[in-house]
Formats: sequence, C-alpha cells, structure tokens
Amino acid sequence: MGNCQDSCKNFWCGPKNTNVRISLPAICFIWQIAMIALFAIFVRYDPEADAHWTEYMHQNNITSNIENDFYYRYPSFQDVHVMIFMGFGLLFTFLKRYSFGGVGFNFLISAFGLQWALLMQGWFHSLDSTDWTIKIGMKSLINADFCVAGCLIAFGACLGKVSPIQLMVMTLCGVSLFAVEEYVILNLIHAKDTGGSMVIHTFGGYYGLTISWILYRPNLHQSKRLRGSSYHSDVFAMIGTLFLWVHWPSFNSAIGNHGDGQHRAVINTYLSLAASVLTTFAVSSLSAKRGKLSMVHIQNATLAGGVAMGTAAEIMVSPYSALVVGVCSGIISTFGFVVLTPFMEKHMKIQDTCGIHNLHAMPGVLGGAVGAVTAAFASTSVYGQEGLMHAIMHGFVDRTMGMQAAHQAAGLCIAIISGIGGGAVVGCILRLPCWGDPEDENCFDDEVYWEVTATKVHILATRLCCWTPMLIINKFRQTD
Amino acid sequence: MGNCQDSCKNFWCGPKNTNVRISLPAICFIWQIAMIALFAIFVRYDPEADAHWTEYMHQNNITSNIENDFYYRYPSFQDVHVMIFMGFGLLFTFLKRYSFGGVGFNFLISAFGLQWALLMQGWFHSLDSTDWTIKIGMKSLINADFCVAGCLIAFGACLGKVSPIQLMVMTLCGVSLFAVEEYVILNLIHAKDTGGSMVIHTFGGYYGLTISWILYRPNLHQSKRLRGSSYHSDVFAMIGTLFLWVHWPSFNSAIGNHGDGQHRAVINTYLSLAASVLTTFAVSSLSAKRGKLSMVHIQNATLAGGVAMGTAAEIMVSPYSALVVGVCSGIISTFGFVVLTPFMEKHMKIQDTCGIHNLHAMPGVLGGAVGAVTAAFASTSVYGQEGLMHAIMHGFVDRTMGMQAAHQAAGLCIAIISGIGGGAVVGCILRLPCWGDPEDENCFDDEVYWEVTATKVHILATRLCCWTPMLIINKFRQTD
Amino acid sequence: MGNCQDSCKNFWCGPKNTNVRISLPAICFIWQIAMIALFAIFVRYDPEADAHWTEYMHQNNITSNIENDFYYRYPSFQDVHVMIFMGFGLLFTFLKRYSFGGVGFNFLISAFGLQWALLMQGWFHSLDSTDWTIKIGMKSLINADFCVAGCLIAFGACLGKVSPIQLMVMTLCGVSLFAVEEYVILNLIHAKDTGGSMVIHTFGGYYGLTISWILYRPNLHQSKRLRGSSYHSDVFAMIGTLFLWVHWPSFNSAIGNHGDGQHRAVINTYLSLAASVLTTFAVSSLSAKRGKLSMVHIQNATLAGGVAMGTAAEIMVSPYSALVVGVCSGIISTFGFVVLTPFMEKHMKIQDTCGIHNLHAMPGVLGGAVGAVTAAFASTSVYGQEGLMHAIMHGFVDRTMGMQAAHQAAGLCIAIISGIGGGAVVGCILRLPCWGDPEDENCFDDEVYWEVTATKVHILATRLCCWTPMLIINKFRQTD
Repeated sequence: MGNCQDSCKNFWCGPKNTNVRISLPAICFIWQIAMIALFAIFVRYDPEADAHWTEYMHQNNITSNIENDFYYRYPSFQDVHVMIFMGFGLLFTFLKRYSFGGVGFNFLISAFGLQWALLMQGWFHSLDSTDWTIKIGMKSLINADFCVAGCLIAFGACLGKVSPIQLMVMTLCGVSLFAVEEYVILNLIHAKDTGGSMVIHTFGGYYGLTISWILYRPNLHQSKRLRGSSYHSDVFAMIGTLFLWVHWPSFNSAIGNHGDGQHRAVINTYLSLAASVLTTFAVSSLSAKRGKLSMVHIQNATLAGGVAMGTAAEIMVSPYSALVVGVCSGIISTFGFVVLTPFMEKHMKIQDTCGIHNLHAMPGVLGGAVGAVTAAFASTSVYGQEGLMHAIMHGFVDRTMGMQAAHQAAGLCIAIISGIGGGAVVGCILRLPCWGDPEDENCFDDEVYWEVTATKVHILATRLCCWTPMLIINKFRQTD
Repeated sequence: MGNCQDSCKNFWCGPKNTNVRISLPAICFIWQIAMIALFAIFVRYDPEADAHWTEYMHQNNITSNIENDFYYRYPSFQDVHVMIFMGFGLLFTFLKRYSFGGVGFNFLISAFGLQWALLMQGWFHSLDSTDWTIKIGMKSLINADFCVAGCLIAFGACLGKVSPIQLMVMTLCGVSLFAVEEYVILNLIHAKDTGGSMVIHTFGGYYGLTISWILYRPNLHQSKRLRGSSYHSDVFAMIGTLFLWVHWPSFNSAIGNHGDGQHRAVINTYLSLAASVLTTFAVSSLSAKRGKLSMVHIQNATLAGGVAMGTAAEIMVSPYSALVVGVCSGIISTFGFVVLTPFMEKHMKIQDTCGIHNLHAMPGVLGGAVGAVTAAFASTSVYGQEGLMHAIMHGFVDRTMGMQAAHQAAGLCIAIISGIGGGAVVGCILRLPCWGDPEDENCFDDEVYWEVTATKVHILATRLCCWTPMLIINKFRQTD
Repeated sequence: MGNCQDSCKNFWCGPKNTNVRISLPAICFIWQIAMIALFAIFVRYDPEADAHWTEYMHQNNITSNIENDFYYRYPSFQDVHVMIFMGFGLLFTFLKRYSFGGVGFNFLISAFGLQWALLMQGWFHSLDSTDWTIKIGMKSLINADFCVAGCLIAFGACLGKVSPIQLMVMTLCGVSLFAVEEYVILNLIHAKDTGGSMVIHTFGGYYGLTISWILYRPNLHQSKRLRGSSYHSDVFAMIGTLFLWVHWPSFNSAIGNHGDGQHRAVINTYLSLAASVLTTFAVSSLSAKRGKLSMVHIQNATLAGGVAMGTAAEIMVSPYSALVVGVCSGIISTFGFVVLTPFMEKHMKIQDTCGIHNLHAMPGVLGGAVGAVTAAFASTSVYGQEGLMHAIMHGFVDRTMGMQAAHQAAGLCIAIISGIGGGAVVGCILRLPCWGDPEDENCFDDEVYWEVTATKVHILATRLCCWTPMLIINKFRQTD
C-alpha cells in the first residue's frame, strides 16, 4: 500500500516530464485523421461555392457573380484571419524568452481549432436536414475563426505555463463549449451579438481565467526572471496590437447584415477604438511615477474599445455613444492592469499572464451590457419599421424592446456561466500530471519545447559580462 | 524686477520638466469629452450606413446591397488604415532607442486626430444645411485617415525631439489647417488631388519642416549616440516601409471615382512605385563607398513614387509616364537624403529626423507639378467626352485644359504656403517652455516618456563590456 | 602565353570584387530606361481601367461600376502583393546577419521583375493583334506578381551566396522563361493551374535548385558562423510565414473564375493549409530529441498545404480531400527538411539556403499530381454540365476527363523540365566571375553590400566579452 501511495505521489508530485515527442505527434495525427473522416461524412461546399452556382443563379434570379456572398465578406474574412494568426500570435510574443511559444502555439491551436469549429458550428447551426451534411462557405470560415478566437483568449491567461498538449485539450473543449453556448445565445435566445462581446470575449475570458485559477502555481516566482518583456519583444507585441486594432472594424462587421449593417458596424468600431486609445494613454500616464507610459497598457487596453463595441456594433447607437463606450472600456481596462491583475494574482490565485481579464472579460461584459441597454432604447423612429426587424429583432415581430433587452442580458449571463463552468471542468482535466507541462522554474521559457540555439551564446555572453569584473576584483583582492 | 527677470529666465531657460503625469491625462480626457459633446451635436450616420438604408434603396432605385459604397471602398479603407497605424508607426521605429515613442505616439496622435478630422472635414465639406449635421460614412473615415497622415508626416520631422503634449497640439492645429487648405484646394479652386500629393504630402512636409526649423536645437549633438538605428530596429522600420509601399495603390485610389478611376489609380501607383525602387537602389549604391546600400534610403526613397503619383493617380497619364514619374521621384528623394538633409541641418537649421523633406515635401511638389502638366495635356481624344468631365473637370464644362492646369498649380502653391505659414505659427506656440519636451541630451530616448525596464540591464552589460578591459589595463599599468 | 594563362586564371580564380558601385546603378538605370521605352510602345490601359469605361459599359450592357473586374479582384491582389513583398521578404530575414539582404534584395528584384513580367506576359498572353499593344488591368498586375513569385523562390535557394547583380540577371531570365513555360502550359496545353503549383512553384523550385547546384561552393563552411538564425531574426521570419499563410487563400483564388471559382479556391486552400500545420508540428516534434520543435520547420513546411492546393484550388475536390492534400504536403515538406536537405547538401552538391526543395518543389509536384488525378475523376454529376466546362475544360467540349488529366501531367513535366533546363543555362551564365558575388567566407553577411553601422559595436562587444577573461587569465599566468 505504501508502494501504491508512493506511485500515486509520484504520479501527482514527481518531477515533470516535458518530453512531448510521442504525445504531440500522436495527438496531431490521430486528430487530423479523425477530422478527415468526419469531413468526408459531413462537410460539403455551400451552393455559393459549388460548381452548380451558375444554375443556382438562374434558379434564384441572381443576375451577377458579384452577388456571391464571397464578394460581400472576403475582405473582412481576410482581416479576421490576419487578426487570429498574426494579431493574437504577435501579441503573445511580448515575453522576452517565450516569443516562439507565443506565436507558434497560437498557430498550432488555431489551425487545429478551426477544423473542429467548422464541424461543431456546422452541426449546431447549419446541419442540412435533407442530407445531414454541413455546407461550408465564407460565413462558416469567418465563424470558425471567431470560435478559435475564444480559445486564443483563454490561451492568453495560461501563456507560458502550459504544454502544447494542454493547449490542444483546452482548445478542443473550448471549441465544443463555444459552439453550444453560441447556439443557446444566438439561436435559442435570439440575442444579438454581431462582434461577439458576449459569445467570444466574455466566454473566452472567463473560460481562460477559471482554467488559470485551477492551474494556480504557488511557486511561479521561480521563473520571475523570464516574466517580462525585452525592448524588441515589446515592439513585436505592438505589431500584434496594431494588427488587431486596425482590423477590429472587420471583426465586428464580418458577419453583419449586408449593406448598412456592415457599414455601421465599421463606423461604430472605428470610433470606439479611437476613443479607447486616448483614455488608455491617459490612465496609463496617470498611474505611473513621472507619468511614464507602460507598453503593457498600450498593447492591450487600446483594444478594449473594439471588444466593448462587439454586441452593439450593428445597432444604431449613434457615433457619440460609440465614443462613450470606447472611453469607458479604455478606462476600466487600463485600471484593471494597474489594480486588478496584481490583486487577483496575490489574493485570488489567478495568474493571468496577458491580462485577459482586463482586455476581454471586463470589456466583454461591458459590451454585453451596452447591447442590452441599446436594444431597450431601439425604436421605429430611429430604425424605420423594416430596419428594426432587420437589425435587431431577427423577424421576431412580437417581441417588445424591453423583452429583447432582457434576452440580451440573459445571453450575457449564459456566456459568463458557461465560461466559468466549462473552465472549471477543463481546468480539472488539465491538472492531471500527464500533459507535459513545465516546472515552475521553467515557465515562460522557449527552451522547454523549442530548439533555441541562439540562447546559449547570448546567455554565455551576458554571464561573461557579469562575471568578468567580479573575477578581476576577486583576483586583485587575493593578490593584494 | 531682477526677480521677475529671473523667473522669466527660468521659464524660458530653466531645466526642462518632462513629467507629463498631469498634463497628458488632462488633455486626453478634456479633449475626449469635448469630442463626445461635439459628436452628439453634429455627427450622424450616412444614409448608406443608416438603418433606413433599405428604404433609401427603394427610393433611389438601388437594386442590390452590393451597391452600397461600403463594398466599393472598404478594402481600400482597410489598407489606408493599416498604412496610418502600422506603416507610419513602424517606419518611425528605426531609431535604436525610440521605437516605443515612434510607434506609440504615432498611435496616440492618429487616434486623437481622426476624431477631430471627422468634425473639421465634416464642417467644411459635408455639413448638411437642412439639419446642420455631418453624415459620416466610408468616405469620411478614409478622409479622416488622410488628414491624420498629413500630421504624421510632420511628426516625422520632429521625431524624438518633442513631447507627446507638443505632438497633440501639433496634430490639433495640423488637422484644423489641413481641413481649411483642403477645402480651398478641392472645393474652391476645384483642383484634382486624388492621392493627396499636394493636400497631404506637400502640406504635411512643409508644416513639419517649418516646425522643426523653429524648434531648432543647437545642442542636439548631445544625444548623437542615440540618433541612429540598430540592426533589428532597421528591420522593424523596413516592415513599416513595406506596409506603406504595398498599400500605396489603395491610398491613391481610396477616394477615386468608382470604376475606371480607382482601377487606373492603382495601376499608375503600382508602376510608379516599382520604378522608384530601382532608381533608389541605383542612387543609393552610387553615393556610397564600394557601392554599399543604405537602409535609410531603401526605407524612405522607395516610397517617393507613390507620393509623386498622388495628384495624377486617376489621370490618363499612360503607363510609361507613371514609370517616368517613379524614376524621377526616386532619384530626387535619394539625392535629398545624400545631399540635402545634411546641408539643411548644417546650414539651414532644420533638423529633419526622418528626412520628410525627401520623402514627402519634394516628391509632393513633383506630384503637384505632374498633376498640372497632365491636366494641361488632357483631351477628349484620350478620355472621351464623358470621361474627361468625370475624371478631371468635375463637371466644370467651361474650363479649358490650360485653365485647369493653372488651377492645379495654384493649389500646389496654396499647399506650400499654408504648410509654411501654419508651421510658423504652430512652431512658435510649441516653443513655449510648458510642453514637457526633453533636454537636448535626452532626445531620441524612450526612457523619458516610457517605462523601459530592459534598457538598464542592456546598458549595464554594454558598459561592463567596454569598461572591463580598460579597468584591467589601468590596473596593470598601476601594478607594473 | 603564360601571361595569358595567368590572366585567365585571375579572371576565374582571383580574389572576388564585391564592389557594385558602378555595375548596380548602371543596370538599374539602363534597364529602367528600356522599360520606359517598351512601355511607351506597347502598354496601354485595359478598357476597365480606361477613361472610356463609361462608354464601354453602355456598349456591353454593364449596368453598374461594381461589375468592373477591379472590385472582383482588388482585395485578392492586395493580399498577393503583401505576400510577394512582405511575406517572401520577411521570410528571408531568418539569417542572423542577412536580414537586410533578405528583405532588401527581395524588394529590388520584385520591383524589377514585375515590370518585365507585365511585358513578357503581355506579349505572350494578351497582345492585341489590332494595334500590337498590351492592355493592362487588375489581372495583369496579379499575374506579374505571380511571375515574380517564381523568381523569388529561386532566390530562396541562393540566399546569401549571390550578389544583387546576379539576382537581377536571374530574375530577368527567370521572368522570361516563366512567361514561355506558362504560355505553353496554360495556352497551348490548356492545363488548369489556378494557384500555380506547376507554373510557379515547381518551375521556380527547380530553377533555383539547378542554379544553386551549378553555383556550388565547396568551401561554404567558412561562413558557417553566420548560417543560422538569432532569436529575433526567427520571429521576423515567422511574421513573413504568417503573412504567406494567412493570405495564401487569396493567392490561389486571385485569378480564379468569378463567383463559385474564387469562393471554392479559398475554402480548399484554407483547409489544406490548416491540415499542413498540424502534420508539420507532428513531424517536427517526432524528429527531434525530447520532441522539441524547430522554427525552420514551422516557418516553412506549414505553407506546403497552400502550394500543394494550387493546381486543384478551383476543382471540386471536396473539403476532406483538401485536408488530405494538406496532411501529405506537411509530412513530405517537414521530412524534406529533416532528411533531404542535409542529404542534398552533402551528396548532391545542392546548397539550398531556405529549403525551397521542401517548400516549393516537392509540394508543387504533389500539387500538379493532385490536379491531374482530380481532373481525371471530374464528372458532370459533381459539376453540372455548365460548371464542368467552366471550371476545368475551358470550353474544350471534345476532351474526355482522361485526356484532360494527361494534359495536366504533361504540364507538370514541362514545368520541371523548363525549370531544370533554364536553371542550367542561367547558372552557367552566373558562374562568370564578373558579377560581384561574395567570397565563401563572406556569404550570409550583410556587411558586403549594406552599410551596417551597428554591427561593429556588436562584434566589438561580443569579442570583448570573449577576450577579456582570456586576457586576464593569460596575464595572471604571466604574472604568476
């Protein structure tokens, strides 16, 4: 029994094995083969991407190829794609010795997640009941990217502390949960969430924070030397920020209604983002000695305006309200970095590497609230009868504006609950000691999972710099 | 009185205080609140972005959502947006220790300026006289970005030598001036300037140069150690250059006429840019010992072809003329870097950090001249009757081609004059010693306005490297 | 005679002269002037970019400006443009001291090549027989970029070992050859190759490998110290990879058929790329001690899915087959990096700096094969009668599917043969010792062709670090 206890203890507390040579390839191959099988069974081209499109045009009185949804959405899709792979990826390079992991694992789990997202979202949203297949087109690709975004947010909370295997499990479960909560919020409750403040950011934020809470590492200070940025890694991260910032109007408008819907979503997001930049700089300067700005704030809180405008992007909030939303989100987000993140780490045992609570969770909740409030104040005088149906009500003629607002609020609650609930379950799974995560002292270090040749030279050079004077001094001491 | 003199002297010549902890947040907040108030009063959605769009379609016999201006201009808008925030931002990171300031302040003043630009341009160009409101749509957002571009050019001349407060004042005044000169050139004189050679580049260039001249720092050599690039900062800047270069066809076509106008603007700019790359490499190699190329030239002069093609972008200049424009602009721009910039710094007291005289001012003037010449040679045989009206004359049936050319030349003069005049006034304002600008020895240094943790380690390491051998040598000298 | 032998020997084996101060500018200027002359004679605007467009619309019953090809292709064109200049350029920055050369020479030869490509492709594909002119429009610009891509692939094999003069000769000949083989494959054989697996990647790959084989440097190990990456140069290269990866769907769809063709090409490429990411990570991890991932694999092999999907991009391969193509290409590409590249360098005297055999040549051949196989299995039940004609047969009603497959295979052979044959001829030309290429010990070093101020400090610091302790030790030894 002692033996059993010992092996139990070893299983849970033994030295960690970060060798992923068998497990990572195995998961990739098995999963990819499963994807191929499921795609063969379920996935077909959308009529707009099918070779029968010309016949389809005749049947539906479509006069021109330009009416293909491709031309409405492709520019936005490309921007969203850039955000997922380049925006998030580069934003995660800010740590001085975890740039490979930041951009590389972001690449892996996005490519992994989007395939599963196409299936999960297809099954829930667009399963064709005549032949039980999923027809994928431009909108499916955008939605798959959105779904992946939720999981990348969760990655941000765990950056540097988990293994690629854990990330893949987290993404697999995250995508599944996402599809369910999205189905409930959009298809059952019929809440409006064009840019995904609730569905993507609130869910993803709380999902990641809960996982990070369960995976709490009391001795993380052992890798404190690596938990910071270098001058150039900060510039890399800033490129990621700018990718996200510049393309966010496309994110919030990508699956918007054709015509005025997409147009308005872009204007609202553009304004909200601009306002959040100014308040971020203001609060960042206000919070530091001599008013010095912090790159962490600029890299993150400037994006809060886009997050907070997500739900109401298509709503006739009017331009000045978009500015107000941006102002508030910039303030709360920067305030979060200054006050809440240290507090949460110290007192609530949540180690949030990228500060996703400030960038995604809080502004996401704000965005959901803005959606509910603006829905409550919608009226036919502002929208016109036709516009109101189109923009908010999804054709639910019998709903009052108050009812719609209540449904929006319900959607927000569901996003929070499923984020926390799902994160709790997945976090417990990820605590199993078989996933190859690094020791506390090796967190935030690319050497664990990547071949990094350059480092040794660098380290050597640095050490020589530091040692040499000491050597001399000691030698002379001895000599004297 | 001596006391008064003393305090006067202190006011003007005392040690500079770079603490912006109160002033920067105060300006950001006050300004942002003013923006919200003004937007609430004046700014509404354009009919194409309004929920009444479906009704608008019926009234105007528009048969499809794809006819919404959004789909004509959104891809170009996104490219312009990328240029402003990523292209300019990264181009400004070339200094070895001012990368944060380059990309960060670019971010701040762009987000700040575009809100004011929407208002100023709205008041001058598109104030709806029925209800005194401004209707913003896709074209307004592009124009706001253009307006900001003019101020960013001016930033380039002052890079590293001014405080964020000064930049905000410069942007505020710059945007106001821009809206006025643009109104005069485009709406009163009815000159043609699709890509803004005159309105944006010439104005922005001379505005910045004049400010830089007035803010001349005789002891700037004290920060000479920081006024250069590092290997990686040059690569960052090169990314910025490529963003600008690749997207410049969108810049010159973004507000062009639908159809052939935008199409032709892209072709002309594409060709002009390609030609200027070749002549830049040629002159750069010719001007250096052993033919070695200079990154400064490649980063900047390769873009001159886009600047110089701005005014005539939509004109039927024919493809080979676009190449000629590119060739000339590449030559004069590189020549400017080799000869003029050092000359201006030494003899004219103009310290032009980024060489905007070479990249924007001179090619902008060239572009204005090209516009005047090509307008003079326009004819119905080349354009067709309808095309001529559409592309150049703006429906002014009674203008001869020579008259239009004269108007173009007048526009160019106004751009230069308002740049220099405005710069002189704003420069004097910025000389007041209350703006928190850095000492001469701290120019081009991020430590003044940013929290830069990594630097100290870096500096320490570098110093140890340099000191240690000297220490040893000295020690041994003493010993021997 | 001995003298003659001596001078002969000197010509071939004397110390190399890397001074390009006369030759580089001369070539740039002469070439650019020749381009202007040829453009003046041959190149005009396409009707869709001409000021007569409004008349053209009336004549051809086109009801809206949005039907201009510009709006169908401009977003894709911009993405392709980004890939050529930023994607390839940044991917080539991975060497620790050849980042300037990688991104800079990529810039030079792209801008140089696209002008010549417009002419060559114009003469072969679209010479208007009524007035012997070439009409350029959006599709011409995309094709010119494609043509340049083939030469950039060849650049990848020679990166760091050739002079800019050699690169320009290589590009000049490469573009000419490209236009011919493309004409044969697409216009004579009527093979289908939307994304250029055969025409671009296979041709470019073998062209570059053959040149690299002929320019074999037996003493390249002398510059081994520089033939590796640094931590940050790897991140720069990763940005290039992501640019290519994210925009590859645009590459494969840019010149696709309007409507379903472009739509389907995007979906297929998106899926194939995602699958190749997973297998790349898997094989990379499998091939290394402790499963550590290699940045070289991630930077390159993840793109193989896009290459291999090129030929069949528009074909109704069905989504799961796109995944299969991605899986296979990711495996063979990573396998190539692990096994073939070292083998080829050691035993076949092919020094392939960027591993283009793995990223372009092999996946290109795979793509050609996929095209042939899928053409063989095309049927009216899948495509519909109209769709089949449109998507594959180009209106050749009398071809059976088997015949089309044979033609595809013939196209692939022609691409390989013209790559190897052309490379052999061009390689021999480039062996002439007059092109200013660097000595073996100076390969992969920016100092040869670029002004690199920072390096000296860096080198000095590094050397001091290494020398100082030795100096001390030696000194003490002497003292003792």
